[in-house]
Amino acid sequence: MKSLKEKIAVAVLGATGSVGQKFIEMLADHPWFEIRELCASDKSAGKEYQDAVDWFLSSTLPSSVKKIVVKRCEPNLKSKVVFSGLDSSVAGKIETEFAKEGYTVISNSKNHRMDNDVPLLIPEVNPDHLTLIKKQNYGSGCIVTNPNCSVIGLVIALKPLADKFGLEAANVSTMQAISGAGHPRVANLDIEDNVIPLIKGEEDKVETEPLKILGTIKNEILEFENFKISAQCNRVNVSDGHTECVQIKLKRKATKQDLIEAWQNFSSLPQELNLPSAPYKPIHYLNEEKLPQPKYQRSADKGMAVSVGRLREDPLFDFKFVVLSHNTVRGAAGGAILCAELMKAQGII
Amino acid sequence: MKSLKEKIAVAVLGATGSVGQKFIEMLADHPWFEIRELCASDKSAGKEYQDAVDWFLSSTLPSSVKKIVVKRCEPNLKSKVVFSGLDSSVAGKIETEFAKEGYTVISNSKNHRMDNDVPLLIPEVNPDHLTLIKKQNYGSGCIVTNPNCSVIGLVIALKPLADKFGLEAANVSTMQAISGAGHPRVANLDIEDNVIPLIKGEEDKVETEPLKILGTIKNEILEFENFKISAQCNRVNVSDGHTECVQIKLKRKATKQDLIEAWQNFSSLPQELNLPSAPYKPIHYLNEEKLPQPKYQRSADKGMAVSVGRLREDPLFDFKFVVLSHNTVRGAAGGAILCAELMKAQGII
Amino acid sequence: MKSLKEKIAVAVLGATGSVGQKFIEMLADHPWFEIRELCASDKSAGKEYQDAVDWFLSSTLPSSVKKIVVKRCEPNLKSKVVFSGLDSSVAGKIETEFAKEGYTVISNSKNHRMDNDVPLLIPEVNPDHLTLIKKQNYGSGCIVTNPNCSVIGLVIALKPLADKFGLEAANVSTMQAISGAGHPRVANLDIEDNVIPLIKGEEDKVETEPLKILGTIKNEILEFENFKISAQCNRVNVSDGHTECVQIKLKRKATKQDLIEAWQNFSSLPQELNLPSAPYKPIHYLNEEKLPQPKYQRSADKGMAVSVGRLREDPLFDFKFVVLSHNTVRGAAGGAILCAELMKAQGII
Amino acid sequence: MKSLKEKIAVAVLGATGSVGQKFIEMLADHPWFEIRELCASDKSAGKEYQDAVDWFLSSTLPSSVKKIVVKRCEPNLKSKVVFSGLDSSVAGKIETEFAKEGYTVISNSKNHRMDNDVPLLIPEVNPDHLTLIKKQNYGSGCIVTNPNCSVIGLVIALKPLADKFGLEAANVSTMQAISGAGHPRVANLDIEDNVIPLIKGEEDKVETEPLKILGTIKNEILEFENFKISAQCNRVNVSDGHTECVQIKLKRKATKQDLIEAWQNFSSLPQELNLPSAPYKPIHYLNEEKLPQPKYQRSADKGMAVSVGRLREDPLFDFKFVVLSHNTVRGAAGGAILCAELMKAQGII
Repeated sequence: MKSLKEKIAVAVLGATGSVGQKFIEMLADHPWFEIRELCASDKSAGKEYQDAVDWFLSSTLPSSVKKIVVKRCEPNLKSKVVFSGLDSSVAGKIETEFAKEGYTVISNSKNHRMDNDVPLLIPEVNPDHLTLIKKQNYGSGCIVTNPNCSVIGLVIALKPLADKFGLEAANVSTMQAISGAGHPRVANLDIEDNVIPLIKGEEDKVETEPLKILGTIKNEILEFENFKISAQCNRVNVSDGHTECVQIKLKRKATKQDLIEAWQNFSSLPQELNLPSAPYKPIHYLNEEKLPQPKYQRSADKGMAVSVGRLREDPLFDFKFVVLSHNTVRGAAGGAILCAELMKAQGII
Repeated sequence: MKSLKEKIAVAVLGATGSVGQKFIEMLADHPWFEIRELCASDKSAGKEYQDAVDWFLSSTLPSSVKKIVVKRCEPNLKSKVVFSGLDSSVAGKIETEFAKEGYTVISNSKNHRMDNDVPLLIPEVNPDHLTLIKKQNYGSGCIVTNPNCSVIGLVIALKPLADKFGLEAANVSTMQAISGAGHPRVANLDIEDNVIPLIKGEEDKVETEPLKILGTIKNEILEFENFKISAQCNRVNVSDGHTECVQIKLKRKATKQDLIEAWQNFSSLPQELNLPSAPYKPIHYLNEEKLPQPKYQRSADKGMAVSVGRLREDPLFDFKFVVLSHNTVRGAAGGAILCAELMKAQGII
Repeated sequence: MKSLKEKIAVAVLGATGSVGQKFIEMLADHPWFEIRELCASDKSAGKEYQDAVDWFLSSTLPSSVKKIVVKRCEPNLKSKVVFSGLDSSVAGKIETEFAKEGYTVISNSKNHRMDNDVPLLIPEVNPDHLTLIKKQNYGSGCIVTNPNCSVIGLVIALKPLADKFGLEAANVSTMQAISGAGHPRVANLDIEDNVIPLIKGEEDKVETEPLKILGTIKNEILEFENFKISAQCNRVNVSDGHTECVQIKLKRKATKQDLIEAWQNFSSLPQELNLPSAPYKPIHYLNEEKLPQPKYQRSADKGMAVSVGRLREDPLFDFKFVVLSHNTVRGAAGGAILCAELMKAQGII
Repeated sequence: MKSLKEKIAVAVLGATGSVGQKFIEMLADHPWFEIRELCASDKSAGKEYQDAVDWFLSSTLPSSVKKIVVKRCEPNLKSKVVFSGLDSSVAGKIETEFAKEGYTVISNSKNHRMDNDVPLLIPEVNPDHLTLIKKQNYGSGCIVTNPNCSVIGLVIALKPLADKFGLEAANVSTMQAISGAGHPRVANLDIEDNVIPLIKGEEDKVETEPLKILGTIKNEILEFENFKISAQCNRVNVSDGHTECVQIKLKRKATKQDLIEAWQNFSSLPQELNLPSAPYKPIHYLNEEKLPQPKYQRSADKGMAVSVGRLREDPLFDFKFVVLSHNTVRGAAGGAILCAELMKAQGII
């Protein structure tokens, strides 16, 4: 399932922003999708992409997109699949417009994530939520969303535990990378030799999104999972990779070894379907006590695997451990592309 | 009470190490104490301090100590008060020897902290624990210890809450500075663009030391406080200042405003005695949501005040908030010097 | 000469910017000057300073200025002395307006630096250039400028050599701190783990400003010094402190020891007048081979002294050495304040 | 020429050190060479490599070497080709021993670099120097050396200019990465927020090695090139990639365009022979004024290409420009491997 006769034309909304750039980097050699159109704000529209963008990724700007003339974010594109890296200040309205006009919108923005009929999708965790699309009133169009960057790694790590032992509570303290804040929002003078113990709106997302993602569809209705999460979110001076200290209380008794096995044996639909961006194993459990660390594990399986380590018993909860995932790959562009791959494999695209 | 006719002669054990250097920097202009002797390992003994030390603090090596000839760590000093910044691999035995020979040992090392009859002292929190000294079998000598650097800020912040509302549980996730690891133990290649989610032995200290510090002396015996603490300790790329995400469960109902007032009104014996190194207010509560941050608050009141902020209700505990303190000042050398000042004010020195 | 009966009222133009903030920090406890008015852009005008500014210095916002209501940069102030930290896009015109209305303008902006009748002043180097003011057509007003931040340290180090041995050529390669770029212009993603080998317009300033500063006034006309300078300017990941690798060719023969003595013996009018911000010694020569370093020397004599080290013979020039100075103190606000102090001491203010 | 029927067995001396680790990483999938043996100090000998090494590269320790039992650095190996990443304190003697016993030694250490009969080899620059081997008295063995990490990039950039226009003088100021200092020699507290203007012994290497590399073999004797170089070497807070500000004086007149063309047209024997590690183009000239930067160009052509930019006329020399190269790839392990590839292609191995 690794190549198509003819690639599917896709567009990127918000193409000059940080998530947009990451979409472009990751789609440049994609076996199924081909970037045909790029959309951005009025300021960029009409320019060649290479002139419109302040490309800040350390990879080279892919030559295939350099000369694409940037368009406005209006639903008059030839590509029927659009990846949205739009800023949340404008994403809600624009994505709705595209869906109404028949486009398949795969969005990394927060705006539609909690809509009743919009899947908040992690292909390894809740692929069945894609059926929610049927309830959307967008005709042939639809909206699928990717969770917040600090939620994705967390929920992938929680999923096998939720399935096997049931979750009663989760407590999370994050140390998040700078790239998650977009470019150039974090000034060096602010984060160098510093920790910023506030990321606006982030804690609320971490406390709510997992309950939707881990929810169950009953009679075509999504019922949220019902347990409590507390989150404390911090920005640290790391380029890429969110590190999260997690504590959990389980419904059923389990040993450390039970948890490790649950993680190590976890495999899901993207692995079964052999989707191009799917990691070979979604979760890497590391025995070495000082791991995972952003420097060493963020790029595990091209940034699509989640690393877990330091599992130990907890005096207040049942267990504590550390989760690490690449925030702009698994946690943003890569995660959204995997959603699109799942939709293609299931005939939705 | 700010000056003495004649200063008290003191010595520093482990004078070339990172804590030793900080002791020397902070004692250089002390109104009560004067460094007369410096002791270090055999490698340094016999050399002038300026030749023995690889001084790495950004302040200048105080000229008053440059030419002091370093001695071995043996209890044949003229100074009867010794500050110990010894490495824990040797501190236990050496400190005992000094105490037995009649020296007053104020130690920053972990070795004697949990001894039954040794005060684990934070002058604002448990000054009454000094009476434990009487039970020591060291004749005219004694040992007093300073808690771990990530414990001091935490316990100062917890103290007024424990007093007013009672503590039922505390959960802590730390982001600790590099200076706490000594010099030159953390290589730039290890911590640059990285988080290290392990500090050996640290979590155990955070989970146990506060219970001794907050304990009560009954019939001359110290009874530990009885509540549960869980700690997760991380090293981040910050030079100085430990940031801690704290969650607490209280015994008695309280509002956010109650907690803020408890912190703001907190004052204790060092303030009353007007000790030279005592902060004017031990706890600074900050209303600005994005604070405290190491860059801005670590040096509050010369590094001796603890900063608290981001108080909010917690879905799993009662409250969560952020605590920041300077790990090598309040959390090490400065904290130990304040202990010595208290002992002087109470006639023990 | 360290205090005045009544302080002189001063204003800061561009008060919310990075140089403006530094002016405010350094003037907060000044023995001669007192900030009475703060001016900034229309966006800030009308607000209390504490609400208008995004204060990013690690010191606390001085309470004396918190409630000052920000005014527009228009010459209707009560304070007759204004410090300008205006952006060069607007500084030229505004500063001229103030001078014409009788204000004494001491500017850190580049706009008027190369004007024939405007002193480009380093009080230790060319105090006699203040006489140029007489030729200005601003009535009772005047403009005095402070050189570029990477020029000041360089020229102070060159001055005693120029005087004693004559300069034939100077070659400079800089490693400049981030704070010089203002706030928040340098994004962490741009400078972290990076060097930027371009600072727009900087090399031109380094190649020309020293020739004016080291010039001689003959018959009331300033004649530029006549030798060649080549500069290469780089931004590195340092918060404060510009490091410069300098090579020089001299007109007259000299030994290493001659140069060191020239630096060590250098003292000038600000030292003689005992101006409040004058360093005790303008130049510190360091014998330790690995110095100067920004971390250790930038704050020498409160950031007002220039550190020089690593003097050695050069295969292409005569000598090479390293110069370090604090770019926002000696190289900007502090330097400008010292200019004002000199003007006060000489009765110009 | 990209694969061999049977790979050539090689060993790495100093396998646990920083250069040794890089050799192992880069040889892991090499089409011609296969690591069969690893040698290190007595401390490591006898252990499996995975237990002996503190692997600090961000890539994963290659599984092919994990279980290799580390040997002492003694010339009793089966592999007849050895790559030496030994520390210079021991490299000289050990490498001689290996050569005498018939081993082909390709060394990254400085010890034998300036030996008369030892090629100081950059395959694109002086491949003909390999004939010096014939003059060595090591029987079937030989020693070939790789230049200093800050020399390689510089000399590759100078080579086409030397050939076309002749060099009369070169002036270099470097900003060198931390990885060049080995692991864990640079403590974070030393380099964070700092510049260290001294790298012991480095300036001497930069001032002498290029003259040997650019020298000419006449009557089987190597005559050094004869021009003057001055170097100033600095350590900056960058993980990988040395940035160098270069000024040159040419023997023959040339325009900026002439230089750019000389760089862009430069190609040499490794490109002709299509050696596996040879960059497609040895030199990348960048038109964008703010480049090259370590973050963006260090990995150009897998770290084997040298990036040049910011060419401009110079007031003191003829031209100035910026050179960037990856210090541990092109400047160390990768450069040495390319030497070995050239030797294989020429039948020496």
